[in-house]
Amino acid sequence: MRSSRAHTIQRMAFSFEVHATAEGGGRRGQLTLPHGVVETPVFMPVGTAASVKAVPQSLLEEIGAGGKGAQIILANTYHLYLRPGHELVRRMGGVHRFMSWERPMLTDSGGFQVFSLSKLRKVTADGVEFRSHLDGSKHFFSPEHSMDVQIALGADIAMVFDECVETPASWERTRESMGLTHAWAQRSKDHFELHKHLVPWSQAAPDVSPGNAASEGKAAFEGKTQSLFGIVQGGMYADLRKESAERLVEMDLPGYAIGGLAVGEPREVTREMIARTLEILPKDRPRYVMGVGYPDEIEEYARMGVDMMDCVLPTRAGRHGLLFAQGEDGSLVRMNIKRREYAEDQGPIDATCGCMVCARYTRAYLRHLFVAGEPLGLTLNSVHNLHFYLATMERLRTELRADPV
Amino acid sequence: MRSSRAHTIQRMAFSFEVHATAEGGGRRGQLTLPHGVVETPVFMPVGTAASVKAVPQSLLEEIGAGGKGAQIILANTYHLYLRPGHELVRRMGGVHRFMSWERPMLTDSGGFQVFSLSKLRKVTADGVEFRSHLDGSKHFFSPEHSMDVQIALGADIAMVFDECVETPASWERTRESMGLTHAWAQRSKDHFELHKHLVPWSQAAPDVSPGNAASEGKAAFEGKTQSLFGIVQGGMYADLRKESAERLVEMDLPGYAIGGLAVGEPREVTREMIARTLEILPKDRPRYVMGVGYPDEIEEYARMGVDMMDCVLPTRAGRHGLLFAQGEDGSLVRMNIKRREYAEDQGPIDATCGCMVCARYTRAYLRHLFVAGEPLGLTLNSVHNLHFYLATMERLRTELRADPV
Repeated sequence: MRSSRAHTIQRMAFSFEVHATAEGGGRRGQLTLPHGVVETPVFMPVGTAASVKAVPQSLLEEIGAGGKGAQIILANTYHLYLRPGHELVRRMGGVHRFMSWERPMLTDSGGFQVFSLSKLRKVTADGVEFRSHLDGSKHFFSPEHSMDVQIALGADIAMVFDECVETPASWERTRESMGLTHAWAQRSKDHFELHKHLVPWSQAAPDVSPGNAASEGKAAFEGKTQSLFGIVQGGMYADLRKESAERLVEMDLPGYAIGGLAVGEPREVTREMIARTLEILPKDRPRYVMGVGYPDEIEEYARMGVDMMDCVLPTRAGRHGLLFAQGEDGSLVRMNIKRREYAEDQGPIDATCGCMVCARYTRAYLRHLFVAGEPLGLTLNSVHNLHFYLATMERLRTELRADPV
Repeated sequence: MRSSRAHTIQRMAFSFEVHATAEGGGRRGQLTLPHGVVETPVFMPVGTAASVKAVPQSLLEEIGAGGKGAQIILANTYHLYLRPGHELVRRMGGVHRFMSWERPMLTDSGGFQVFSLSKLRKVTADGVEFRSHLDGSKHFFSPEHSMDVQIALGADIAMVFDECVETPASWERTRESMGLTHAWAQRSKDHFELHKHLVPWSQAAPDVSPGNAASEGKAAFEGKTQSLFGIVQGGMYADLRKESAERLVEMDLPGYAIGGLAVGEPREVTREMIARTLEILPKDRPRYVMGVGYPDEIEEYARMGVDMMDCVLPTRAGRHGLLFAQGEDGSLVRMNIKRREYAEDQGPIDATCGCMVCARYTRAYLRHLFVAGEPLGLTLNSVHNLHFYLATMERLRTELRADPV
């Protein structure tokens, strides 16, 4: 079945237009946010603590096909809340200005990191009490607090606060957790709507001090605010995913994420959960799968109709010497650069790759940097892998453009 | 006294021309090497293991006044000998090609690292037996072996193999060590002259394999070889420095370094030793002080007539959060970026600095990167400090140009 309708959602400071829907459900779109326009499907590099690890912003603006750079990046609410603190980031004018990244950004809600990193969590209907993974200090996150933190950070897109269930989890346990996630989503939305005018780059936000950098350039953002996306949970149960998606859609949010995947389940299950959820989500809203995946996975999910994805894999794998390349038959090659066979290999990582690393450096040199523990290796490996992800998405967007609308 | 003579030395693949000699002895020059022209006085960033730590080559080509980048960098023979091995680097076409740096380079002799890093050294008239700081494996360096290793690496300038004496050392111990250094200098020169045609980028060098990258582009280097510089020792004794300089000058080398300084002695002593040595060294040869120093030191020594300097300080200090800036009165400011006072400082490191870091990032962000242990902090701090050093030299060259010749 080939659908050719164009779907559009337009709101203040947020619009999403789907240009084409291809066989299988893959679609091209354009997401307009306060800090710029994002062509979808899009992969978002992760800038955990307001830095895409080991990659200078100037290089991040140049990677990907055509040297256009990353269109949108992600930052982690949990990490920035703990260090340097969201109130400090607010006083610096928000996370864009703090890290000097004037393109779109997204913050997660902190829920996943509270679940995966912090110690001694105690979940109640009200929220989560936890201890910092950095110093053991005690903290409390509620939906309202997550919204306050994310508004202070001021990314273009914020996420509702959700609970992530451990895996595997029983149907009953998963359904119970999902109920909490839905209640928290509504509380997140209610609190966000009441306080979204406080985003640091909003004209309505009070200036911290006269002459503060945060007060400059606000005119460009007149009337604009962040957008809040919902998160579908439901573990590995198709019926719960369906129920969760239906409940979230009732809340009429501008975009929807599919959370709680890629936590150790088989890839067939990930695919099935995404497929079942996409059936329910409205076609005129961006659909975002959180925390996936390998390059062949992000391509597959984008062909199914996913518009946004993020993952630490390109940078984390790069720091561990795992590089992605394209095989002669078009298949994905995973190259462990520390292997002895590359010690005198004068070829680039990937002869078909157009990135600045493949244009300049040999496998032999990259292996040497890795083996010698040179910090430059972290940077070059991360730049190549990010380019590989962004170029994959660019190629896919071109293909989807070519499809008849 | 103002000297206005122009001194010139011209040899195959090496020329040095001194354009002006200013009051105090400072002079502008131009050093022509196989891989390019170097304006002196020059500061050489240190690329220990074929990487200026944490700085991509593309940024290294853009730092400094006017975005001209580093003119020449240094690599360490000891480190590259141990890892990845000089024979591997030779097969890759030499260190320029291995690390993709097509501008001039210099290698030290390995003597200083054998002295400061390795374990269980045993010095004989023949050479030094030592154990690797990496894995404890046993190695032997003689003047002849240092030459073979440096010819395999193929930097534009190689250094004679010297012994570095511990500090403090008695006059007798220093003189004995100096004698060894002189004998080794002669042996270095003799061996170098016999084997310099084997440098990987020389047309005379045998190709490792047909079609090997090392065989490309050799025409540009027709008839050119490396240049071997001498090293003056003599510890902290003016009479020994004088004797050492005289002995080295008799060997008629194309350039002379002053070694064994900045090893813990007071700065007045460093200055005195440099001044006494410069009196002896010929005016038509480049004079190179090894391993110095703080920005105000390199400026001071350049004003005394030193043409070349290198130091790990800008990059090492940067990695430890120590940043250099210019105070309002022109004095040197040492800024410890991890201090709490910078946590919300929206200014750049140095408002008068033209580097890419000061143009884009705040002290608050750099402090955050350092405190959070983000690898990007290593890169940005190193780039700023290197720019500060290179801009200092550029300013000085402009001043010296303005002096009448």
